[in-house]
Amino acid sequence: MRYACTGGKGLRGFFVLESAALHGIAPKNAVAAAAAIEALHAYSLVHDDMPCMDNDDLRRGLPTVHRKWDEAVAVLAGDALQSLAFELLTDPALGANRLVLVAGMARAAGARGMVLGQALDIAAETATTPLTLEQITRLQRGKTGALFEWSATAGAVLAGADPAPLARFAAAIGLAFQITDDILDVTGDATKAGKRLGKDVDAGKATFVSLLGLDGAKARAATLIDEATTALAPYGAKADNLTAAARFVIARES
Amino acid sequence: MRYACTGGKGLRGFFVLESAALHGIAPKNAVAAAAAIEALHAYSLVHDDMPCMDNDDLRRGLPTVHRKWDEAVAVLAGDALQSLAFELLTDPALGANRLVLVAGMARAAGARGMVLGQALDIAAETATTPLTLEQITRLQRGKTGALFEWSATAGAVLAGADPAPLARFAAAIGLAFQITDDILDVTGDATKAGKRLGKDVDAGKATFVSLLGLDGAKARAATLIDEATTALAPYGAKADNLTAAARFVIARES
Repeated sequence: MRYACTGGKGLRGFFVLESAALHGIAPKNAVAAAAAIEALHAYSLVHDDMPCMDNDDLRRGLPTVHRKWDEAVAVLAGDALQSLAFELLTDPALGANRLVLVAGMARAAGARGMVLGQALDIAAETATTPLTLEQITRLQRGKTGALFEWSATAGAVLAGADPAPLARFAAAIGLAFQITDDILDVTGDATKAGKRLGKDVDAGKATFVSLLGLDGAKARAATLIDEATTALAPYGAKADNLTAAARFVIARES
Repeated sequence: MRYACTGGKGLRGFFVLESAALHGIAPKNAVAAAAAIEALHAYSLVHDDMPCMDNDDLRRGLPTVHRKWDEAVAVLAGDALQSLAFELLTDPALGANRLVLVAGMARAAGARGMVLGQALDIAAETATTPLTLEQITRLQRGKTGALFEWSATAGAVLAGADPAPLARFAAAIGLAFQITDDILDVTGDATKAGKRLGKDVDAGKATFVSLLGLDGAKARAATLIDEATTALAPYGAKADNLTAAARFVIARES
């Protein structure tokens, strides 16, 4: 479980802490929520890498859990990481609204959120016709978007404030993140990425790049980052870290 | 997900509703917790049946999820059932103490509870020396005991009452349940059980039957049922349904 949580970008946990800071919540009163979303994200990667799913040998530059140990360990470590995510959300330091975070995470992770996205993704691999832009966007909204929104709005939820601006930020940045993943899958360096690349092209899967072209995908990602930073306007300079993160999302190499 | 939740005994959900009734909580204010524990239990079976775990083709008399669909569906349906379990626990009808149930379920399901039991169980399959009675009891406490305790104490937790008598009931009945499973694995009828039997003997695994003998195991289960019913004494006749369930646990054929 520790191995699976190590070496990532920590982007979702960062969103939680920044979202908390925007609402005057100290790190010590938000860090359990940041840890929770990182545990949940790690679980999703461990299961997603398994042979019956994406069948990946490399993650964050290291062997995937089922390669380092075996598939049973991957199933169980992922399962326990999901339980751990919910356990972390019950930390009293998160305050009176933490049950709202529990409900939101359960919805975002479940069959109408992340798991829906994963299921659509796997179905796409055996589909006879490539997905449309609309279908890929829906897939992405579940697979990446739901947890991004949960993370970016967590501070507002804990503070009992309006989460709408941060939800708009998350929707834009989540889509830009997935488009950038698709761009990196084509143009990236596997060593820097720490994982296998080119697999979507090899599998003949529709991606934002195959549908929009490389330049079109880059332009779309840039527009979305503009939307994301515009959504942060109500917070002024306090949102500078999140604005920087938005720029990082499309500039990253891994 | 629906398929995986269908056709079971519903014993854990029954414990929740009876535990609630003992504390004057109406079924409508406990049923979401009963549904949650059944969803969590169903998830554990779907993953446990997978080829990399127990590799079972039959469950509750029907093909297991990975046989009816495939392994990816089994991973994802199990994952989403765990999320659903936590989502159900956020139902406002459960009242002000439902966050305590969330924390308890997360602990009972996780790496120090059910998943620990599963991991010990899988490790035992490749161990060079059979487990001792103490080790098997620890394994069982995680694998079955943790969720039994959560279920039987849920009503007390929701009511803010002392859960200790029900925890004692659950510990005794949980161990009796596992001993009976081991007995049925040797003496049972696979058609009635709805699953493959004799697998522990085939695998050369230590069980309560191999360690205590068939008569010794039956005697131990009977003693535990006496302990379980004694633990219910404080509740008087209100606990008659739970007492009947305790007797069912060792008399059952599936």
